[in-house]
Formats: sequence, C-alpha cells, structure tokens
Amino acid sequence: MVFTSFMDQALEEARAAAARGEVPVGAVLVDPAGRVVARAGNRTRELCDPTAHAEILVIRAGCAAARSERLPGYDLYVTLEPCPMCATAISAARIARLYYGADDPKSGGVAHGARIFSHAQCHHVPEVYDGIAAAPAAELLREFFTLKRLGNQSG
Amino acid sequence: MVFTSFMDQALEEARAAAARGEVPVGAVLVDPAGRVVARAGNRTRELCDPTAHAEILVIRAGCAAARSERLPGYDLYVTLEPCPMCATAISAARIARLYYGADDPKSGGVAHGARIFSHAQCHHVPEVYDGIAAAPAAELLREFFTLKRLGNQSG
Repeated sequence: MVFTSFMDQALEEARAAAARGEVPVGAVLVDPAGRVVARAGNRTRELCDPTAHAEILVIRAGCAAARSERLPGYDLYVTLEPCPMCATAISAARIARLYYGADDPKSGGVAHGARIFSHAQCHHVPEVYDGIAAAPAAELLREFFTLKRLGNQSG
Repeated sequence: MVFTSFMDQALEEARAAAARGEVPVGAVLVDPAGRVVARAGNRTRELCDPTAHAEILVIRAGCAAARSERLPGYDLYVTLEPCPMCATAISAARIARLYYGADDPKSGGVAHGARIFSHAQCHHVPEVYDGIAAAPAAELLREFFTLKRLGNQSG
C-alpha cells in the first residue's frame, strides 16, 4: 500500500537522524498529487534549534516550495506521535491527513497530554491514522535511548 | 519597571508586524544578563511559514546566537498569550520566565485550550506573568482584525 512506502521513507529519515546523534524521528510530506515534496529527520542539535523537529522541517520546506503558509490536501507521515508544537503546526498548515507510527506517552500531543486536536479551539483537525509501522519506529527510539544511557554511564 | 520597557519593545514589533499585514504580535527575548538578544514580530505571510510566530522567531534567533537548543535563565516577552505551538517551544527551550500581554481565548495555549504548561507531561514549566500591557496589545489586534474585515467587505 502507498502509505507503507511513505512511512518507509520516514523511517529512513529517522535512522539517518539517529546516525547524526539526533532523536530518531523522521517525517515525509506528500502533496495532493502523491509526490514527496519534503522529507526530514530531527535536527535540533545540529541546528541548535529546539523547533527543528522532523515535522516542522518538512512543513517549513513544503510551505516554502508551495509559496504558501497553508498546505490543504497534503499528507504528513511521521514515525512518532507529534508533540503539541508539531501538532499545532500541522493544524495551522491545514495538513489534510496525519499518519504516524509509534505512540509517545511521554511527549506526544495527539493521543496524549495536550491532545491538540481534541480542543474546540483547534481550527483545523486533520484525519489521523496512528500505529503505522509503529514497531520499527518504536524500536529505533528504544535503541537510541538505550545507547544514550550506556554512553552516559561510561562517559 | 524593567519589564515594561521590554514589553514596550515587543509592542513596537507588534505594530511593525501590523504594518506588514501580519497578525500584530511581537516578542522580545532577554538573556540572563538582561540584554535583548532577539526581537521579532509575526512573519508567517512574508516567509510563507505557519511556524513563523514572533515567539518561534526569537527563540530560533536566540538559540542560534547562543549555539544551544536551550536557553535557561532567559526571559520571553510577548504581546499575546502564546499558542500551543509556541508554548511547547518555550518549554523545550527551557525559557525561565514568560511575560505576556493580552489573553487569547481563541488560539492561546497557556491559560486556554490545550493549556500546555498544565500537563504532567510538560517537562519544563516557565514562570508565567500575564496581563502586562494587555490593553494596548489587545487594541492592536482589535484594530487589525477590524480593518481586515472592512477590507474583506470592500474587496
């Protein structure tokens, strides 16, 4: 199925993020014609930018390419449940459909915590499909944080 | 008082944003020594970037200047209650104190809606001081949206 292929690309971005020492989350933005217009992994450390989550990076790139602050009809694939910052940006950008992988009880803002799309205040709510390729997405994060803890212990 | 001067600068940025046709919100970032390290107004239209809120712009600029994704001990002054995206970014950046002007029942995410800082999930909660220069900040927004409605009616 098509969305598996897009999520595979998001997973590739998550693996590349891990290789850079970033939290392994990847995102892919797809335009209404089904073309990938942006893909990114987290770059908060590299860019010294706490807003440089994968989702924000693809939204910013997609908006710049479309020369618009809104992306109606676009789909966003991300390996982890977006945090409240990213969920709000997804709503502001009018993304049509959000597909995500692993749940994030610690920092997620869709099915946990602030539950951004569940407030009457939320002006645009995307269709949300969760649990897609959740196992490999969660495994990447587990590996990353296990290695990080081991590194901290030995360092 | 010092914080009035910083909020005055944030109001100047809000007025400049309005003059550019942007929603009139301004922000000023102050480092632990009391120096203004970044000031900005909204630029979502100009930059075709739905994340280009005043708060995000000063956090990104401040982090780039500090070469860090965290700004402990920094203060943020903003003319309007931050939205959930900005509130989450403020928490992620570890901003120490948030001073804001007008309440935003429609899109705010501090005292309304998602109430980002009120969840157990929120890893860093800044000190929050609201209602500072709220009247002129709210008046700027009222003027802007009144003119916009008139423009839409005549356009």
